[in-house]
Amino acid sequence: MLAVTILGNNSAVPAFDRHPTSQVVTHDGVNYLVDCGEGTQIQMINYKIRRGKISHIFISHLHGDHYFGLVGLLNSFGLLGHQQELHVYAPSPLQEIIEMQLRVADTRLCYQLHFHTISGEALLVDNEKIEIRCFPTQHRIECYGFTFREKRKPRKLILDSVKQNNVPLHFYDNLKDGEDFITSAGEVIRNEWVTTAAPKGKSYAFCADTRYFEPIIDHIRDTDMIYHETTYLDNLRERAFERFHSTSKQAALIAKKANVKRLLIGHFSSKYDTLEEFEKEARDVFPNTDLALEGVTYRI
Amino acid sequence: MLAVTILGNNSAVPAFDRHPTSQVVTHDGVNYLVDCGEGTQIQMINYKIRRGKISHIFISHLHGDHYFGLVGLLNSFGLLGHQQELHVYAPSPLQEIIEMQLRVADTRLCYQLHFHTISGEALLVDNEKIEIRCFPTQHRIECYGFTFREKRKPRKLILDSVKQNNVPLHFYDNLKDGEDFITSAGEVIRNEWVTTAAPKGKSYAFCADTRYFEPIIDHIRDTDMIYHETTYLDNLRERAFERFHSTSKQAALIAKKANVKRLLIGHFSSKYDTLEEFEKEARDVFPNTDLALEGVTYRI
Repeated sequence: MLAVTILGNNSAVPAFDRHPTSQVVTHDGVNYLVDCGEGTQIQMINYKIRRGKISHIFISHLHGDHYFGLVGLLNSFGLLGHQQELHVYAPSPLQEIIEMQLRVADTRLCYQLHFHTISGEALLVDNEKIEIRCFPTQHRIECYGFTFREKRKPRKLILDSVKQNNVPLHFYDNLKDGEDFITSAGEVIRNEWVTTAAPKGKSYAFCADTRYFEPIIDHIRDTDMIYHETTYLDNLRERAFERFHSTSKQAALIAKKANVKRLLIGHFSSKYDTLEEFEKEARDVFPNTDLALEGVTYRI
Repeated sequence: MLAVTILGNNSAVPAFDRHPTSQVVTHDGVNYLVDCGEGTQIQMINYKIRRGKISHIFISHLHGDHYFGLVGLLNSFGLLGHQQELHVYAPSPLQEIIEMQLRVADTRLCYQLHFHTISGEALLVDNEKIEIRCFPTQHRIECYGFTFREKRKPRKLILDSVKQNNVPLHFYDNLKDGEDFITSAGEVIRNEWVTTAAPKGKSYAFCADTRYFEPIIDHIRDTDMIYHETTYLDNLRERAFERFHSTSKQAALIAKKANVKRLLIGHFSSKYDTLEEFEKEARDVFPNTDLALEGVTYRI
């Protein structure tokens, strides 16, 4: 199961009980943290996110509302006796910032912390379960979105057919990988006779902070769900452009052109105390839109 | 009026809805912020602290639970159009940490930010209303407490006596400063005949993180109220010593030996979900003790 839980949906300054950006992508028992604004560790407590299950943290860019909570989280992991290795993917100056703060506090972490500098388009994580990539967005400073694509699972055996065709046990894993079986008499038992396809892996894209920027479409095309920022309503599209942000209508246009299935919108400006208008404006262009609400888990 | 409002009363890791250290000392319309753990700006919103009235920030030491919220607060001040100058007093590496984070975000603050490095015992602020000093405590890294001493106000004129003694109007301010008046005939009108003393200025001391450390007593003697850390109960005094912290009994002993009027205790370890025992233990030694509770303003 691939899902995302929103911990913070506001832009720059916390307001109206909305917090700076952070979300947890959950897949198969692993928590991937995406951005870590100030107070993320407290939001994790509030929403019962299991911190011990976090193995990878992705930071989109170095504006404070996307990472000021990271050093506190890393520090708390240390104090709480976190055991497993932790991988942080972020633009390059972050490592120096974090290491300086740990150094002046004379802090030695009890777990291994690995920094990975991201740049351009790149494959960041690739294992048998998931593939995670970054792609550039258009923001005032270097900024990245992230895609999470669940790997296609092994095909499923149709056990009756497998047995009828006398496929030996040791070949079952080959069948799951899609291979045909050839009997000692040279007869071909075609894979599709004895297996069914596994459902296609789910996918999610976090589009970070960005202007309306069509080049991201290639990276998120046909995704099951995307999160796109909507700092402003469309009547402030000029301000959005100047400040390298997007409007809800622009987020919806990207979702539509990329042929995604569902759109989550967030990163609301602190000038808005209510959010209904964002949802309405986006749904006019892309009906399957929802507000990204803090504490809510969106299953994909 | 001198008062302190607690924004965070917990030690290292946030827990049980308790936050890392921060408090606001209010005097005569000015807010002085003491320490700024992660989430302080959100606590300020929760407890309606007027951020615009903050002109001075004092950071006791560079363990994260005492300053990780500072960069976010400074950043938000910028985004919210803070106008007045801001003075930050802290151990030296803080300036570099903050400036690096502002630089990588390409942030230019709209207000003047002045860093003052503290070391040893020093007078930090001295104006007609208040005197603020720092003093060293005994912690794992360089650490300071702060004293706030309201200046004695001008003496009050006894207007009937002033007039009976024919003191001219232009000398009234000299009377308020305690001077005698000498008539043209050489007669001495003694100050205490025509004025009464103003009440003595109030005082408060924040004793930061520290082991039980008697040398701080000289700095806080006879203070109206002190805040002293009590990370542990007294049965863990060995752990407190190892980790450069204090127990509630030790905090109370310091308050007693320093002859202060009232003791606030805080910086509770996250291992304690309830706090009654801290209060009980301290009151056995120093009865006028209270728990420092978040959101509560303690008038001095």
